[in-house]
Amino acid sequence: MPQFLDASAADFEDRFVALLGAKREDSPDVDAVVAGIIEDVRARGDAAVIELTAKFDRLDLTPQTLAFSDVEIDEYCAKVSDSDRAALELAAERIRAYHARQIPQDDSWTDDNGATLGWRWTPVSAAGLYVPGGLASYPSSVLMNAIPAKVAGVERLAVVVPTPDGVANPLVLLAARLAGVDEVYRIGGAQAVAALAYGTDTIAPVDKITGPGNAFVAAAKRRVFGKVGIDMIAGPSEILVIADKDNNPDWIALDLLSQAEHDESAQSILVTNDAAFGQSVADAVDKRLETLERRAIAGPSWRDYGAVITVSDLDAAVALSNRVAPEHLELCVADPDALAEKITHAGAIFLGQYTPEAIGDYVGGPNHVLPTARSARFSSGLSVMDFVKRTTLSKMTPEALRAIGPAAEALAISESLEAHGLSVRARLDALND
Amino acid sequence: MPQFLDASAADFEDRFVALLGAKREDSPDVDAVVAGIIEDVRARGDAAVIELTAKFDRLDLTPQTLAFSDVEIDEYCAKVSDSDRAALELAAERIRAYHARQIPQDDSWTDDNGATLGWRWTPVSAAGLYVPGGLASYPSSVLMNAIPAKVAGVERLAVVVPTPDGVANPLVLLAARLAGVDEVYRIGGAQAVAALAYGTDTIAPVDKITGPGNAFVAAAKRRVFGKVGIDMIAGPSEILVIADKDNNPDWIALDLLSQAEHDESAQSILVTNDAAFGQSVADAVDKRLETLERRAIAGPSWRDYGAVITVSDLDAAVALSNRVAPEHLELCVADPDALAEKITHAGAIFLGQYTPEAIGDYVGGPNHVLPTARSARFSSGLSVMDFVKRTTLSKMTPEALRAIGPAAEALAISESLEAHGLSVRARLDALND
Repeated sequence: MPQFLDASAADFEDRFVALLGAKREDSPDVDAVVAGIIEDVRARGDAAVIELTAKFDRLDLTPQTLAFSDVEIDEYCAKVSDSDRAALELAAERIRAYHARQIPQDDSWTDDNGATLGWRWTPVSAAGLYVPGGLASYPSSVLMNAIPAKVAGVERLAVVVPTPDGVANPLVLLAARLAGVDEVYRIGGAQAVAALAYGTDTIAPVDKITGPGNAFVAAAKRRVFGKVGIDMIAGPSEILVIADKDNNPDWIALDLLSQAEHDESAQSILVTNDAAFGQSVADAVDKRLETLERRAIAGPSWRDYGAVITVSDLDAAVALSNRVAPEHLELCVADPDALAEKITHAGAIFLGQYTPEAIGDYVGGPNHVLPTARSARFSSGLSVMDFVKRTTLSKMTPEALRAIGPAAEALAISESLEAHGLSVRARLDALND
Repeated sequence: MPQFLDASAADFEDRFVALLGAKREDSPDVDAVVAGIIEDVRARGDAAVIELTAKFDRLDLTPQTLAFSDVEIDEYCAKVSDSDRAALELAAERIRAYHARQIPQDDSWTDDNGATLGWRWTPVSAAGLYVPGGLASYPSSVLMNAIPAKVAGVERLAVVVPTPDGVANPLVLLAARLAGVDEVYRIGGAQAVAALAYGTDTIAPVDKITGPGNAFVAAAKRRVFGKVGIDMIAGPSEILVIADKDNNPDWIALDLLSQAEHDESAQSILVTNDAAFGQSVADAVDKRLETLERRAIAGPSWRDYGAVITVSDLDAAVALSNRVAPEHLELCVADPDALAEKITHAGAIFLGQYTPEAIGDYVGGPNHVLPTARSARFSSGLSVMDFVKRTTLSKMTPEALRAIGPAAEALAISESLEAHGLSVRARLDALND
């Protein structure tokens, strides 16, 4: 049974703080193992990657078979049903259209002193995308990571995906193809992250690595950060639903279960201004849990981390939601747009009862890689911005240098940085001659 | 003596790779000490911060004196000379004007299916800015960190700055005031980072921490990352100058020394298409090093990490620069704008002979917090974007859900996420009734 909280109760604040602070991540300490794997790949390259793949994935590779060939990818793609292919194509098209609007603009202007200022955005040259194998091998994640990179203009995009016992997911390979991925390697784990970061004879190094993975992959990404860029290291998924009583309790129950079925550590919270509706939803969850395929995962998640919170009005619901800063936020209320205006921290907002969060996981268009564990307070979901970087531009004329150079010199002197000051002074003196 | 490299020499590639890979950072392993300090501050709050400040900064504080009072800040500000104040005001105004153009735009549109999509940017609520004490206590860094935060709309901006033996830098306090900083605490080290991240009775926690610091501060920022956002952890400063022979060798020498004087691990590289000019610049550096105040720092930097590279033409210079991905890049050539177009990786570009890099450190307008250690391949300098985050928005109508819902359901089923599929199916069934 999830927790039932009433915002008007005396112990509410304590219970809410406990809910916010519940440690939901159980990440084993694999850092020492991962450090060894990375060193091994740096030292021995392909040979290390091949040995580790034989050991962990029970798959014998050679430098020639590390990557899927185009013919192999063709063969896997041909196995996908027409309906699944159509669904994936629709998703790819919508994700591409959404992200195309995120391409940032260059700027350049000349100020009153004659100084020309501005910036230019350029894409990361090469990116690597980690795709988990096994159960969590999601074609949707391939689209969500690869399409923003390609929209940004990344020239070379390499996917690594482990294929334990040689079993590959045809949908993952089709998603890679639809997204325009350039290379696909059948490797995984820390060894794949190391190969992307440092390169081997067969795999050229990349500049940025994104994508989800297990504890080994997360630890490896943390370790190679700095050598390459990485995306966020995601925690268990979360949803917060704000719903009034004019909703179908079963729909809300299914939305809560959509998060709960990801992971026993996932968290689903309902905030409602109607206690009876909250109970109806909890009942509907229980009913669905009787038959849900993943009830062994969703059940413990709902029991251990689920919550139904009753508040006096929707503004109070917004205030709580802003403290949670949820990854996913559904606003199932009469005027969701008005309520959304008051949300200050959330990864993604789904407005109205016809926008289940699952739409956003697949075909809505926005990215499904979103900030977890309250990090929406300070970070954003994956986007084109993760695959571009900005170079600032400054150009002084003699006139501009005369106008602002003396201030630079004064500040340099105040910071005891003499050469900084002299580099300005030498030019000013020449101009004044 | 710096290295002299000739791009046409047989050993050039090996020497260039060695130059790129030179380990310039000497960061002592202080992680265990820092972990202890953070735990102590989490457990004991103000008391721990006060004890550690007494120990490291030889300064006795109470919860009441942790922060500078307004009156104290007034008194410090009054000590700043009129000319220094004017310089700082000019810098603040120009930095504000530049960063104001970076405020990102919200977007919202309705697609062919009737789905409304978009995103909204919101500021981080509270940010903390670390300002080093002692020699590296730079008022310019206060402006460069605080102004983008305030332009972004950060409501609460707290500065921490250690004041060893009670000595504070009036210019730092004036810079904080000019930038609109809300709170200034006289604490530093890992304990200050911990206090900002976790909060104490006196210091409310923040959501994001930026600003430079020593090895302890860097280690503390790494450790609190996740709980709060952090900016990049900067390495030693770098400059690459591309210059033809039509430059004053002394000006270029001073620009190279502007980086070298920061840090013995800083790196200054000249790339020129004229070997004789390269030698003239090296001679000019030597001459300036005879008298430069910071010659004990700049000398070793230039000797150990400096380089003069001769190339056949400017396109070859660009190719090398793009491999370096320098933090600062000066283009001292006849047509710097044309050359800048070809630059794919650099933190900041300074165009033409009247734009010494020092202008960008103080008064140009662009930020001086820039990606070091080749990370301009995948990251950008500090900006307004570091203090905002994006929430994506999706709103389906019944029509839109009918159009794209079935594809979401199909993909959910293909990923074995039944509840995801059912959350869409339940709505579609109701709509089709």
